[in-house]
Amino acid sequence: MDAMEAIFSRRSVRRYADKPVPEELVQKLLAAAMNAPSARNQQPWQFVAIDDRDMLHEIGEINPNAKMAQRAPLVILVCGDPGLEITEGYWVVDCAAAVENMLLAAHALGLGAVWTGVYPRQGRMDGLRRLVGLPEGIMPHSLVVVGYPAEQPSPQDRYLPERVRRNRW
Amino acid sequence: MDAMEAIFSRRSVRRYADKPVPEELVQKLLAAAMNAPSARNQQPWQFVAIDDRDMLHEIGEINPNAKMAQRAPLVILVCGDPGLEITEGYWVVDCAAAVENMLLAAHALGLGAVWTGVYPRQGRMDGLRRLVGLPEGIMPHSLVVVGYPAEQPSPQDRYLPERVRRNRW
Repeated sequence: MDAMEAIFSRRSVRRYADKPVPEELVQKLLAAAMNAPSARNQQPWQFVAIDDRDMLHEIGEINPNAKMAQRAPLVILVCGDPGLEITEGYWVVDCAAAVENMLLAAHALGLGAVWTGVYPRQGRMDGLRRLVGLPEGIMPHSLVVVGYPAEQPSPQDRYLPERVRRNRW
Repeated sequence: MDAMEAIFSRRSVRRYADKPVPEELVQKLLAAAMNAPSARNQQPWQFVAIDDRDMLHEIGEINPNAKMAQRAPLVILVCGDPGLEITEGYWVVDCAAAVENMLLAAHALGLGAVWTGVYPRQGRMDGLRRLVGLPEGIMPHSLVVVGYPAEQPSPQDRYLPERVRRNRW
């Protein structure tokens, strides 16, 4: 799939076929995420690939916006690792860039995915920390729910010319 | 350019040809940014496209990591607009997804770009707010410096298998 087409046709996919995501594609999603830019190339991220059915069920309970995880084959929990930072404070944006790469890669690979926010919601962060057994310094950032799409949302043109200024506000 | 190739071959480009970025491509970069996902599709972003030479010079003074703006034809200042949020607190990650789309689009369109962080550095935020005349509620988030590339950094494989866990930490 063409890169611009991937950017413009990607939509959130919340319904999935009853079919696992092959290991090879899981790796490609993670590699795409890790090829995101980060402040001073610090790569302050960690990933937990979750396909355990009980855990996927629990994720939907912890984060009501991730209810679709209960019927998905896979969730990638993206975590920030501020301990890896030389320049403090950018892990939040760096992890978001990694998530966006993963979403585009999923779409380009014929998968469907949806990003559900975790950070900065303390309740969701605590719940996921407990569920996955995250060490104290590791920050749950986002949940990416992935599967083969059982719906095909149409592309949406979100360009708003009024959001653009030239040189000055 | 293929989407996966764009993700895996994109690198920061910090040296640019002495050539403006055509208006049509500026629009495509902005449209790519605005097609990023955002929490509840709130699209809490605003953009300032800067090509005024004095302002580009000043940007390099305000943010030493954006020194290359002084020899670039274009900078896009990406701002968060928390006033557009229904669900508070996600503008930081949403704007980062928009930046990543813009970087990938630049690469796919034959341009080169580099992301230089602004938020959460208060000094940089204050300096850009003054320079561009941003209203109080608008948060300078990132500077994307863009031009035709005068360097071609080689792709870098950043995949680190030790950053991936299965189900539990």
